[in-house]
Amino acid sequence: MKVAVLCIGDELLKGAVVNTNLTYIGQHLLTMGIMPVLSLEVPDRPADVTEALQYAMNHADFIITSGGLGPTADDLTKQAIAEYLNCPLELDPRAEQAVRERWYSLKRGELPLRFLNQALIPHGAEALLNECGSAPGIHIRTNTTPEKHIVMLPGPPAELHPMFDNQLLPILKAHLDNRLHTRLFHISGVPESRVEERTIPILESHPCLSVAYCASPEFVKLFLTSPDSLCVESAEQAVRKEFFMEMLSDGASTVAAEILHLLKERGATLALAESCTGGLISELITDMPGASAGYLGGIVSYANEVKRNLLGVSEETLRKYGAVSAECAGEMLSGIVERFRSDCAISVTGIAGPKGGTPEKPVGLVYIGVRCFEQSLVAEYHFRGSREQVRARSAATALNTLRRMLRGEKL
Amino acid sequence: MKVAVLCIGDELLKGAVVNTNLTYIGQHLLTMGIMPVLSLEVPDRPADVTEALQYAMNHADFIITSGGLGPTADDLTKQAIAEYLNCPLELDPRAEQAVRERWYSLKRGELPLRFLNQALIPHGAEALLNECGSAPGIHIRTNTTPEKHIVMLPGPPAELHPMFDNQLLPILKAHLDNRLHTRLFHISGVPESRVEERTIPILESHPCLSVAYCASPEFVKLFLTSPDSLCVESAEQAVRKEFFMEMLSDGASTVAAEILHLLKERGATLALAESCTGGLISELITDMPGASAGYLGGIVSYANEVKRNLLGVSEETLRKYGAVSAECAGEMLSGIVERFRSDCAISVTGIAGPKGGTPEKPVGLVYIGVRCFEQSLVAEYHFRGSREQVRARSAATALNTLRRMLRGEKL
Repeated sequence: MKVAVLCIGDELLKGAVVNTNLTYIGQHLLTMGIMPVLSLEVPDRPADVTEALQYAMNHADFIITSGGLGPTADDLTKQAIAEYLNCPLELDPRAEQAVRERWYSLKRGELPLRFLNQALIPHGAEALLNECGSAPGIHIRTNTTPEKHIVMLPGPPAELHPMFDNQLLPILKAHLDNRLHTRLFHISGVPESRVEERTIPILESHPCLSVAYCASPEFVKLFLTSPDSLCVESAEQAVRKEFFMEMLSDGASTVAAEILHLLKERGATLALAESCTGGLISELITDMPGASAGYLGGIVSYANEVKRNLLGVSEETLRKYGAVSAECAGEMLSGIVERFRSDCAISVTGIAGPKGGTPEKPVGLVYIGVRCFEQSLVAEYHFRGSREQVRARSAATALNTLRRMLRGEKL
Repeated sequence: MKVAVLCIGDELLKGAVVNTNLTYIGQHLLTMGIMPVLSLEVPDRPADVTEALQYAMNHADFIITSGGLGPTADDLTKQAIAEYLNCPLELDPRAEQAVRERWYSLKRGELPLRFLNQALIPHGAEALLNECGSAPGIHIRTNTTPEKHIVMLPGPPAELHPMFDNQLLPILKAHLDNRLHTRLFHISGVPESRVEERTIPILESHPCLSVAYCASPEFVKLFLTSPDSLCVESAEQAVRKEFFMEMLSDGASTVAAEILHLLKERGATLALAESCTGGLISELITDMPGASAGYLGGIVSYANEVKRNLLGVSEETLRKYGAVSAECAGEMLSGIVERFRSDCAISVTGIAGPKGGTPEKPVGLVYIGVRCFEQSLVAEYHFRGSREQVRARSAATALNTLRRMLRGEKL
């Protein structure tokens, strides 16, 4: 099956919004072993939408669009595509009821007629109900040979995600020519090239297996795909054995989620003392729903006086070794454990840049302390890249170190 | 001038990377009054690249590509485009020198021949030197009628940004048929529809002016564009008058940057007490280089015991009103000011969801306290949306409130 993605909206081309819908769609198609053959972003203009649709239909048999389904004047996707395919729009009774119910639940008074436009569906198409918004999605099968599918999804991510998962995925699965079996693993703390090397023997012993890798500062995603379910099962066992220590548990899609899971399992608590990461690690952890079960909180000690007064870093350490030193990271670590009485803790101090580096302490020098019950360690790192990258790599390294210690690795 | 963007890389279609290059290019073109007519993402396959290039050339006269210029096997952009245009690749002496210097600066031993491939440039094209990486960019003028421009930029954002700013922008400006004059304003704390309404009279009195809006939780960007410099100047005065209180200073591109600027101006310091935002506000502030000038740090008081022990919120307040209450936000605010001895402070406590809401205290209920020297206030908000949106809106509202108080508004 060949899939193309078409995202509609001036805001994407003006750079007002990052196209996370493409990312979401791409990630979720990959779990079925599918990579889109292309993606397009076009403005809210009917001619641009239909020309791009034509181009996408020349290259794919499933076209997923996002955006332009709402009730306002610049929402033209549905009209443009219906006109292009020569399908008149008709009021869909199920969609009309859902749109009406949505309006009255918002308690905004009388329903404006324009709002009902959202329940117009091209003749012969299927409405996909919207659990988190008003505009329904639309599934059209063209009467061309070969038949093509066009699935229109709403632009807001909060509406697109559940509609993709609950309504589009089953449609895609039903049309997969050869049902593909897939597995996804998150491997943390190993560079992509090493993951690739260590996967080669598994590939060699599983001839009908294909693999894909996606790297981020946090981890490498490893996808296994095969039309043969036994092959995928056997490869899965081999991958689990090879990456036993580095793999996140099933169900955890971030290192922070894995840490919260491990903390819960052990009834343990966590506190943070952040300097150069400035709250980033705390933000990554509290981004997870239910973080409050194990995470107590932390201190962002950006200024030296905060390191001294709130974390108890000694005047002498700051004078003799400086705030960016293993000694300071160690004292921040014991200070935060003492004040928060937590079982686990992380401390980070470093130079994120772009300024503030010296020949002895260059930009990218970061000290990370991690405590896990009785075990503590402080290590020195040299991260390359921009301020943002140094901060992201510091956070990823700190979290992964704690994860490994919580799993009982001796570091 | 019509511009199209073509981003090359499997990782974009797999959802491993969000296409922030399109966002960057879109934002910066808009400052010249240009919105791309379309954008495409394609895999690392020569046929996909050249087909997409053909489609882009049918719709635009300036095509900007990103990605696929590096030294590895999947970097095929340059070869594919050169072959498609029938331009042989030649070693460019200036590019060769830069590539060699780059390699030796990395101190990785002998230069592998493959690395020098990066200095191959299509015959007749111009190499754009890469300040932050090894692969040069390329500017080709086609020998078609009308002439088209193809500018290839490297994929890593840290390399693309300076090359776009310092080398591509001057080329674009030189080819703008009618030089456009533009202004950009950041307007914070006003919904997009209100910005639009309040701009109508200015548009009516400036017939050759066009405007564009881009909304985010943080602010609305307002762009003015006109071929007539006097018209833009006069409209600028009118916009400055209309949005005097709500506009960020020139040079500040985020509310956090504006706050750091205002703190510096007054020699003031800031500390944060975050609960439901969990470090997000701290992260936004420390994302700015030089944040340490005014920002001291903060306490993330996720657990109630941290609110009590580290911020001095009273047992009685927590029992009687709960952690999500105006009373608790007020005590968090005075607690953080006392402990950090800061001139300004923000406190946030609320229910970000998706769970934890009750009929009396639903998801999205957030209390925000802000102190600016002698002035303090605590207000109640009801934010809609996902956990992520509630957190983002809480952070944006808190920062904007402090900004307004620092500017001397009476709230």
